[in-house]
Amino acid sequence: MSKKRVGVLGGLGPLATVYFMDMVVKLTEAEKDQDHIPMLVMNDASIPDRTAFILGRSPESPLPRMLENAAMLEKAGVDFLVIPCNTAHFFYDAVTEAVQIPVINIMEEAVAAAGRAIPGLRAIGVLATDGTVQTGVYERFAKEAGLELVVPEKEEQEAVMHIIYDEVKAGRPADWKTLVRIGESLRTRGAEAVILGCTELSVVSRDQELTKIYPWMVDSLEALAEKCIVTAGGKLRK
Amino acid sequence: MSKKRVGVLGGLGPLATVYFMDMVVKLTEAEKDQDHIPMLVMNDASIPDRTAFILGRSPESPLPRMLENAAMLEKAGVDFLVIPCNTAHFFYDAVTEAVQIPVINIMEEAVAAAGRAIPGLRAIGVLATDGTVQTGVYERFAKEAGLELVVPEKEEQEAVMHIIYDEVKAGRPADWKTLVRIGESLRTRGAEAVILGCTELSVVSRDQELTKIYPWMVDSLEALAEKCIVTAGGKLRK
Repeated sequence: MSKKRVGVLGGLGPLATVYFMDMVVKLTEAEKDQDHIPMLVMNDASIPDRTAFILGRSPESPLPRMLENAAMLEKAGVDFLVIPCNTAHFFYDAVTEAVQIPVINIMEEAVAAAGRAIPGLRAIGVLATDGTVQTGVYERFAKEAGLELVVPEKEEQEAVMHIIYDEVKAGRPADWKTLVRIGESLRTRGAEAVILGCTELSVVSRDQELTKIYPWMVDSLEALAEKCIVTAGGKLRK
Repeated sequence: MSKKRVGVLGGLGPLATVYFMDMVVKLTEAEKDQDHIPMLVMNDASIPDRTAFILGRSPESPLPRMLENAAMLEKAGVDFLVIPCNTAHFFYDAVTEAVQIPVINIMEEAVAAAGRAIPGLRAIGVLATDGTVQTGVYERFAKEAGLELVVPEKEEQEAVMHIIYDEVKAGRPADWKTLVRIGESLRTRGAEAVILGCTELSVVSRDQELTKIYPWMVDSLEALAEKCIVTAGGKLRK
């Protein structure tokens, strides 16, 4: 069966995009190259910072460049799009309106994955950038799924931002113990599952095998990768 | 300074393409996302097997699909192309003739990197697929650099093919000790440097840190990644 082509609106950030592709390849059941799904990936690192713009700290919007890349991918013939960046989903509606092809939503998939992981789930926590947390994008999908959302306290959120920007994005070792501690804090405040809602945190999770050690952690990027494989007509590795 | 866009003719195989991107991101000196080089990547896993066609075991040529993808990347606006697959460089001349933009040659870069690693180098060995070894593509670049080329004996070559196809491409653990043993065998026959001339072997090298442990091993994919960063206007990490 011929597979659908996925277009990846990437570069937000560049390492997270590579990690997403790696995840898609490794989560696909494949005996030979040709069993994998075809991906056209724009790893455009020059897209202005999402969080800085969303919070009004920078006048440079990432949206024009994102729309340009989305149009280029669509023109090149991809069948659907994914954006391996939670914060950039602030612009999700604008991207879907600008193209004719479907765009898979990472938050919708993460919330659905949390529901599958914890039967009878009532509340979720989220570890993400200021841009993702303050604009309430996860809140919207949590609400649609009938779930409460628990977010970090101010100091905890600052520590999460430090891990994302000053450690992972800068290629330095990440303080994963602090990340786990904040996740545990969200659990004491009612969250039964905690979504790693930032692809830089997914990279930390892979390096330290966090979702294996802590089953209450749900990786948003992994949820997106699985949906992407199935949508393209690939098989998920058991 | 605005950077050049690299187009990656990938999917040969899919994991090697992801590994190449990972290498480019990690070898780039970057404090923030925007320091990275922009890449448009076609990870097209459906391209027919290169070695099978080159050795006459399959009638399906990978070339039409490669040319189609090269044209698509050029049309989408990339400034130069790379092909993160040694075997596919059998078609290097055909690809360069089909596009107006430059195409960096992985073998030329690997041979140059071997020369930098071993001053006064006279002979190199190569571990690669049957397709790469039997068509003599490395021999051509070794000769141009005034070097002798040493290749594995028949049984050694079969073991290399087993590692590439039945282990790495199938997602199984690779017998890296056998790879090192065959490299040592090439050294006893005069090779002062041994090129890992297949991207699947680069993956093994990363997982086992082979080029760090054995300084006589030269990774062709790493040589390509470094040239790619410099050509795009990025800075190499020290």
